[in-house]
Amino acid sequence: QSSVTIFGTVDVGYRFSGDNIDSRVKNRSAIDSGTSTPTRLGFRGNEDLGNGLQAGFVLEQGIAADTGTSAGGGTFSRQAFVSLAGAFGTLGAGRQYTPGYVLTSTVDPFSGVTVGQYNNVYLSEYRWDNLVTYVSPSWGGFSVTAAFTLDGYGNESPGNRGAGDVGDVRALSILPQYRSGPLHVGLHIQDLRAKSTGLYDGDKVRVYDLAGTYDFGVAKLAAAYGIRRADNGDFSPDTGATEGEKTKQWFVGVTVPAGAAGKVLASYVARKTEAVAGGDDAKAGQWAVGYEHALSKRTAIHATYAKIDNNRAARDSTNLSGSVGAGYNAGDGYQTGFAAGIRHGF
Amino acid sequence: QSSVTIFGTVDVGYRFSGDNIDSRVKNRSAIDSGTSTPTRLGFRGNEDLGNGLQAGFVLEQGIAADTGTSAGGGTFSRQAFVSLAGAFGTLGAGRQYTPGYVLTSTVDPFSGVTVGQYNNVYLSEYRWDNLVTYVSPSWGGFSVTAAFTLDGYGNESPGNRGAGDVGDVRALSILPQYRSGPLHVGLHIQDLRAKSTGLYDGDKVRVYDLAGTYDFGVAKLAAAYGIRRADNGDFSPDTGATEGEKTKQWFVGVTVPAGAAGKVLASYVARKTEAVAGGDDAKAGQWAVGYEHALSKRTAIHATYAKIDNNRAARDSTNLSGSVGAGYNAGDGYQTGFAAGIRHGF
Amino acid sequence: QSSVTIFGTVDVGYRFSGDNIDSRVKNRSAIDSGTSTPTRLGFRGNEDLGNGLQAGFVLEQGIAADTGTSAGGGTFSRQAFVSLAGAFGTLGAGRQYTPGYVLTSTVDPFSGVTVGQYNNVYLSEYRWDNLVTYVSPSWGGFSVTAAFTLDGYGNESPGNRGAGDVGDVRALSILPQYRSGPLHVGLHIQDLRAKSTGLYDGDKVRVYDLAGTYDFGVAKLAAAYGIRRADNGDFSPDTGATEGEKTKQWFVGVTVPAGAAGKVLASYVARKTEAVAGGDDAKAGQWAVGYEHALSKRTAIHATYAKIDNNRAARDSTNLSGSVGAGYNAGDGYQTGFAAGIRHGF
Repeated sequence: QSSVTIFGTVDVGYRFSGDNIDSRVKNRSAIDSGTSTPTRLGFRGNEDLGNGLQAGFVLEQGIAADTGTSAGGGTFSRQAFVSLAGAFGTLGAGRQYTPGYVLTSTVDPFSGVTVGQYNNVYLSEYRWDNLVTYVSPSWGGFSVTAAFTLDGYGNESPGNRGAGDVGDVRALSILPQYRSGPLHVGLHIQDLRAKSTGLYDGDKVRVYDLAGTYDFGVAKLAAAYGIRRADNGDFSPDTGATEGEKTKQWFVGVTVPAGAAGKVLASYVARKTEAVAGGDDAKAGQWAVGYEHALSKRTAIHATYAKIDNNRAARDSTNLSGSVGAGYNAGDGYQTGFAAGIRHGF
Repeated sequence: QSSVTIFGTVDVGYRFSGDNIDSRVKNRSAIDSGTSTPTRLGFRGNEDLGNGLQAGFVLEQGIAADTGTSAGGGTFSRQAFVSLAGAFGTLGAGRQYTPGYVLTSTVDPFSGVTVGQYNNVYLSEYRWDNLVTYVSPSWGGFSVTAAFTLDGYGNESPGNRGAGDVGDVRALSILPQYRSGPLHVGLHIQDLRAKSTGLYDGDKVRVYDLAGTYDFGVAKLAAAYGIRRADNGDFSPDTGATEGEKTKQWFVGVTVPAGAAGKVLASYVARKTEAVAGGDDAKAGQWAVGYEHALSKRTAIHATYAKIDNNRAARDSTNLSGSVGAGYNAGDGYQTGFAAGIRHGF
Repeated sequence: QSSVTIFGTVDVGYRFSGDNIDSRVKNRSAIDSGTSTPTRLGFRGNEDLGNGLQAGFVLEQGIAADTGTSAGGGTFSRQAFVSLAGAFGTLGAGRQYTPGYVLTSTVDPFSGVTVGQYNNVYLSEYRWDNLVTYVSPSWGGFSVTAAFTLDGYGNESPGNRGAGDVGDVRALSILPQYRSGPLHVGLHIQDLRAKSTGLYDGDKVRVYDLAGTYDFGVAKLAAAYGIRRADNGDFSPDTGATEGEKTKQWFVGVTVPAGAAGKVLASYVARKTEAVAGGDDAKAGQWAVGYEHALSKRTAIHATYAKIDNNRAARDSTNLSGSVGAGYNAGDGYQTGFAAGIRHGF
């Protein structure tokens, strides 16, 4: 028999959300899943094929542990892929993370989750369907990740031209990275192209992210700067920012060890999106501070506070505003958030 | 690596349903899942954190093995929670059983499943979303379970005030229990409050259940008595009895060992629900008898027969009637049921 | 604790689809899941009950690894059943394969999957809900499989008479088989009966399949011949051929070992379906050729090409035409297909 590894995390906590963009909407108190790490259950395995080759797979379900439902869409929408690794690097095929998210969420002190996550404000693609990925070996600390999909958002359509304004989204992404001792830096270059029967057919969105961390020991500093340029509107289904043509965004963060088991996290994130047609630019800024205390290698308790400021242009269009807690596109319009909970990995 | 335990049950059998409330509906013959225990697949684990602390989790899927679909709503709708245990007791957070169901389904000879289950007629909440639970240690046989949720039925709404007549359902439940030798008795007190934009906003449903068992060796006797009082209509999504204002319900049961591997089960369950506006009271009574034969500790064959009598007022409103086999709220209106099958645990 | 085995396959590859029935639909390029074996994740176990008896279960999920979603309907729609085995044979209850598919997909060189699968053209039922199966012991190579369901497609309806034209589908199937050395031959006889409130109520579809293989060592030959006769229209939900009254279908195939790790597969499949009311007969023919190269017992790379020819009557009604790649009823109308990918079992 084969040896399959079961892995995952269950994270549940209390979350308070306030200061809604719509002033008529009152505060929300909730027991929520994934307050510092999304709850998930996964299965993975590897097989040595000889000749330095390895086959492997990952199947990972997202779970909303507060309601017992699947989180994030499909049953195995977190990850589902097969891989083949060798001296040449690692090839993967299936639903996988985008290189852009791999870079920026690694750099973010909050790892791209909880109320303080950079991607409440900073636009990023998360995962793509139908993705072929390549990760090179490390050449003296230098490596390259590349990814290509014929449609990142659902099955490829007949004729590779999806119905509607956005349709199939072809994406190509390349991520050179350098790691050496305390330094990690990466440059992400990405190209999205709509193949549709509608408005954006043939349009592109070009994305650039330069991000890195430097670990001084007493503190680990993080910084990222990103640009998104759309031919005609940022049609990416992950950002929902269809009214934006140009976006500039950045964040800085710090992670400070506090005693043997604790760490303090803090960050500031900002974004400016230029509207396509006239009007003021949408601007959003977020600062966040958090604390984690490890009860063991697998289990921790945590608390985070974050506050977003959306300017009037951002508030006018919910498509352009940032909201606390569940990533850019999934928010309820709340601009302050506090979450505290327990995370148990296995 | 961590050690995750896979557990579950597959139970499939034959079920006959007859005597429909609607006399035009004929009998139904079926191969059904969960004829004595719901089919499920679960994953759980524990971690010793030192200092007498333990972290743990449960993720449990409900499955309709007859059709290969998820049973009971979300993918992990049976249970999904993280826990922290110590000398102080056990805290849990996530989707979990209600204390009321824990008590009454434990007392019921049919354990709250199969055509003979008490909850074909006896109203009870089953599981709540977003639930924080506490189970005390046992102090000389005495223990207390408590539970609180900000919305037992789905994610908490923005503003904690759900759309529609029922909206978010806040619930508080407390269950003192005493166990000593052959005796087990518990008193369940529960408060449901609708937080909504509609009719029931601010209304309460108060629930009381007194239930217990005494094991004489030759037979284990069970009894329960319950009251539900609604301000304005029993809006609980688990009961569907929105037209009832006051409910009195009770059951008695017996479990008799028969040889080394067999046991005979029997119960009688009754409920009277007062209609809100005029009209006669709805009354339902059910008797049930069953037999189980263990082929091993994990595998058993079983057969159960049950018959419900709904009076005219209960038949007039399907919301108030009891029907055999799938719990109060999920029935097809059948008043007699027979089920026989095989149950295999793992 | 019990010992549950986790098993499955992840298969992802590139697929090209061309020559659409609708000439306005262009070619499709895609990364797809299941290009030679459907991606799945399963759990199974067995328990020795003593006296030569064994209890067991299988719960198997279908997964579209390209998009991270469930494949094929319900969460555990591939298989979900409990079994009891002894000297008398094996009884199973739950969602299971039909005996007809077990025979014909075993005989097909492409095992009923990939762009070359026989069932792009050859009509067959796949799995039934609510199924009770019996597999006899082997008596000198001769064995019998039998299966019965009260509704193969969803839960049995109240009154066992589903709404609509097709409603509940009762099915009875029997499959005598003979295996001896290089020879395997089986005769499949099946009876479907609609129990509905609509057009087909009481109608039958009778199915016969004679199929077998002979392994000459240098090559394994396969052949199958099948007939479907409908009283009034082939209402089987698996075939979608509701306008056909009589179908004759056959295929021949060959599997040739090529070196220590390779094998070449080829087949030709044909079907003729007589329209109920006037009109020409629908005819479809498919030839396919493929190659598989094992990297280990569990992992292989593969490539397949297939081409279907639908005559004008078949093209006029998409219900009657064959299309490449995803089985008869799920196709997009493409008549040529190429797929190449990697399959990793565990």
